[in-house]
Amino acid sequence: MTVEVISVGTELLLGNIVNTNACFLAQRCALLGLSMYNQTVVGDNPKRLGEAVREALLRADLVILTGGLGPTEDDLTKETCAQVLELPLVEDSHTRQRIEEYFKNSIFKEIPDNNWKQAMIPEGAMVLDNDNGTAPGLILEKDHRRLILLPGPPEEMIPLFQGQVEPYLQKLRPELIASRMVKICGKGESQVEKELLDLIDGQTNPTIATYAKTGEVHVRVTACAPNQEVADRLIRPVVKEIKKRFGICVYSTKEEETLEMTVVRLLKKHELTVATAESCTGGLVAGRIVNVPGASDVFREGFVTYSNKAKRKHLDVSKSTIKKYGAVSKETAREMAVGGVFATDSDICVAITGLAGPDGGTEEKPVGLVYMACCMGDHVMTEKYQFKGNRDKIREQSVVRALDLVRRMILEQRGK
Amino acid sequence: MTVEVISVGTELLLGNIVNTNACFLAQRCALLGLSMYNQTVVGDNPKRLGEAVREALLRADLVILTGGLGPTEDDLTKETCAQVLELPLVEDSHTRQRIEEYFKNSIFKEIPDNNWKQAMIPEGAMVLDNDNGTAPGLILEKDHRRLILLPGPPEEMIPLFQGQVEPYLQKLRPELIASRMVKICGKGESQVEKELLDLIDGQTNPTIATYAKTGEVHVRVTACAPNQEVADRLIRPVVKEIKKRFGICVYSTKEEETLEMTVVRLLKKHELTVATAESCTGGLVAGRIVNVPGASDVFREGFVTYSNKAKRKHLDVSKSTIKKYGAVSKETAREMAVGGVFATDSDICVAITGLAGPDGGTEEKPVGLVYMACCMGDHVMTEKYQFKGNRDKIREQSVVRALDLVRRMILEQRGK
Repeated sequence: MTVEVISVGTELLLGNIVNTNACFLAQRCALLGLSMYNQTVVGDNPKRLGEAVREALLRADLVILTGGLGPTEDDLTKETCAQVLELPLVEDSHTRQRIEEYFKNSIFKEIPDNNWKQAMIPEGAMVLDNDNGTAPGLILEKDHRRLILLPGPPEEMIPLFQGQVEPYLQKLRPELIASRMVKICGKGESQVEKELLDLIDGQTNPTIATYAKTGEVHVRVTACAPNQEVADRLIRPVVKEIKKRFGICVYSTKEEETLEMTVVRLLKKHELTVATAESCTGGLVAGRIVNVPGASDVFREGFVTYSNKAKRKHLDVSKSTIKKYGAVSKETAREMAVGGVFATDSDICVAITGLAGPDGGTEEKPVGLVYMACCMGDHVMTEKYQFKGNRDKIREQSVVRALDLVRRMILEQRGK
Repeated sequence: MTVEVISVGTELLLGNIVNTNACFLAQRCALLGLSMYNQTVVGDNPKRLGEAVREALLRADLVILTGGLGPTEDDLTKETCAQVLELPLVEDSHTRQRIEEYFKNSIFKEIPDNNWKQAMIPEGAMVLDNDNGTAPGLILEKDHRRLILLPGPPEEMIPLFQGQVEPYLQKLRPELIASRMVKICGKGESQVEKELLDLIDGQTNPTIATYAKTGEVHVRVTACAPNQEVADRLIRPVVKEIKKRFGICVYSTKEEETLEMTVVRLLKKHELTVATAESCTGGLVAGRIVNVPGASDVFREGFVTYSNKAKRKHLDVSKSTIKKYGAVSKETAREMAVGGVFATDSDICVAITGLAGPDGGTEEKPVGLVYMACCMGDHVMTEKYQFKGNRDKIREQSVVRALDLVRRMILEQRGK
């Protein structure tokens, strides 16, 4: 069964708001096993909206529209859809009553006239009561064509979809679609694809798709099956094979687990604490760790030692090391990490020093050169990177690699 | 002149990522005076993509496509567009050379074979060099039809668009559209709109539009004119009026200047240094300051003192203060800021302590409660906020307010 999303609103065409509704609906529809091949954005213009609805109905079994259900004159989604399906508008007494109740306790003394427009519905439509606004959702069915109309504000749309549209869609779907994510750090997207080419080429069910994130590649394995058990049986061996091929580079197979969550989970499991000593990343590694709720169990403190003096003062990096090798060097990174463990009494310290640019690069040490070190007990791992891109990109990649270095250190020293 | 955006990527149809590219392009096109009536999202499927391109070309003078230019097998945007315009693909030696250079200093030992595919371009295409990735942007023109192909990752797409596509588009347009941005911190969007209502209502040329950002509101004043001088003459009095109405809340009228840039600029101007002492924001304030190239002149070091012990050790917060008022209190924030100035010998220190949640809130101190303090010499400013939203949103808002607090402190103590 195929579905399309049409987002209605001139504010989207002007770039005043980001279309998070389409993203939400795409995600939920994928989870419901509906295939989405097109999304469209059109303004509050009945002619263009009508065309978009007609075209979408030619391609898809089901079209979900958001926006344009409000009380104002340029809200025309309902009227346009009724026209496309050739359904007359009739007053819905239940909705009229709900509008009355909605305004009873509001700041408005009387109900603005244009709100009664929202009690008019296409004949035969299913009304989805909206507890967070005055415009109800609507489901229109005619000659095997289905239109689902939802209000635009996410705080109204999301509860309506989850509470009333999902149960409706679940009844319609023939098969279940399930997927698992394998999250990889330390390989580029083209490298990952190359190493999976034989699997990707032969794919039918399950299918394999790769997604590049900054410093990471996510691989999604998706199966279509009559029930969850069969889906799991199709997905499991493929996930196992991918994990085998990428070994330690796989940091998680949980959809919602981020790299920093993995790091915090491993630290908690082994009852370890981590500290940060950052130069070019300027606090962003600490910021990512603190992203994770409950990070306080494993992270107590971090240093942003941007100047050489701060590196010496807080991390006891020796003057001669900085003089001999420079602030951006393996030796300085190592001393920062070792010094960080001592200064904070943490079990682990990760240190980053590099040239994020745009200025300060030399032929010997170009912009993008980043050294990092991780110290745990007597053990120190160091890494050298030459990143590409602008200042932000260099810093973002550094943060991902630094988090991953902590992960690898724990795995190496303590196992899974 | 009309324009459409086609976003290519199965990850959009699956809801794995939000389509921020379409929002960016819509905003920029509106500024360039181009009319956008449709946006489309399609997957990496040549048949459906081809149909979308053909349909868009029937409706619009110009179509901008993002995504599907990568090295992998399912990246087919270029091939599909070449087919629609009936252009053969030829190797571009300049791009081939750039790919070689790109990989020369990268972490990859050899260039994965599939990368060479990116050196193939539709015959006659204008190549837009991509400094942040291997896939170049392309402009295809044939029989008054124009296709602009850009890579999907925003950190590649945005610089390409601003640096090379905008100048190209500017040459096509009949009249000049110029705009100025007034950036406001410390007022909500509806408040800003309310205070500008008389100006907005009467607008024709220039027009006024507000954009809500986390913790900020940007007001854009846009004029349409035969030349820059006339445009400036239309815009200047309106900008002046807005600045007058919002006073100290206006932090910049420069399009590209971010709040952290303003802070670094003011610090440099007055030859001041700043330090950070962060609890709930976990290094993100330092990270934002270090975002600015050349921040090392004004920022030397920062602390992430997540635990109470770290607050005491590095910032000399007294045990009794934490015991009496709690770690999340005005008093603790104040001592963190004062202690930070002493510990780092910086002129200014900004400190943040708060409850980002999701756990740890009480009736007296609910999640979202954040205290911040800024110390400069003998002067300390403190602020209390009750932010809404999830952990990320609370932290993001805190970071913006902390940066703004530094800005206000400098203005108050040293003037503009």
